[in-house]
Amino acid sequence: MTQFIHPAKEDITLTGVLNALGDPVRMNILKAMMKNDGCMSCSEASPCTSIPKSTLSHHFRVLRESGLIRTTKQGVEHRNVNRTDDINARFPGLLKLIVTLVEAEVS
Amino acid sequence: MTQFIHPAKEDITLTGVLNALGDPVRMNILKAMMKNDGCMSCSEASPCTSIPKSTLSHHFRVLRESGLIRTTKQGVEHRNVNRTDDINARFPGLLKLIVTLVEAEVS
Repeated sequence: MTQFIHPAKEDITLTGVLNALGDPVRMNILKAMMKNDGCMSCSEASPCTSIPKSTLSHHFRVLRESGLIRTTKQGVEHRNVNRTDDINARFPGLLKLIVTLVEAEVS
Repeated sequence: MTQFIHPAKEDITLTGVLNALGDPVRMNILKAMMKNDGCMSCSEASPCTSIPKSTLSHHFRVLRESGLIRTTKQGVEHRNVNRTDDINARFPGLLKLIVTLVEAEVS
């Protein structure tokens, strides 16, 4: 059975979160998940269909182990939700600022 | 002769900066440099004397190539300065928030 590792809220580190977001693919996954504000499968949240499944799994693992998302198994699918409340509690203002800066950078 | 690669201000990316700061050693180097607010050699800015020189060089290269610092060679030493103005122009509020969050996390 697949076991997912999620850090407790108090174990989420700033450098871990920055490292997770320091990659364009992972940043796009998180952006998609924040816009959706719900539960997404890995493929739904993927920024591009051409990313190999193993690469996508790696990116979701980094996001999960940094504390940014929570994954559960539902049937054959992995469903992912943002841990926005935990991140906001640990690092107030960080996610909001990063999303604002990403939008400004793209536009 | 050593050539240092520095991105132009407009080529500095958010994910590059977050990736550079997503490591405890590099975060500590930047903290030391921001406190000093001047020019520091690699060893002066190092958080720990036991870090091998090659590892330290790698960390300074990541910081430099992300756009966070500028390095020049002075005699046998590499001198480093923050590119705070460039980062603040590209990503307003980011450095200030990160430094605040780092201080809060440590205390």
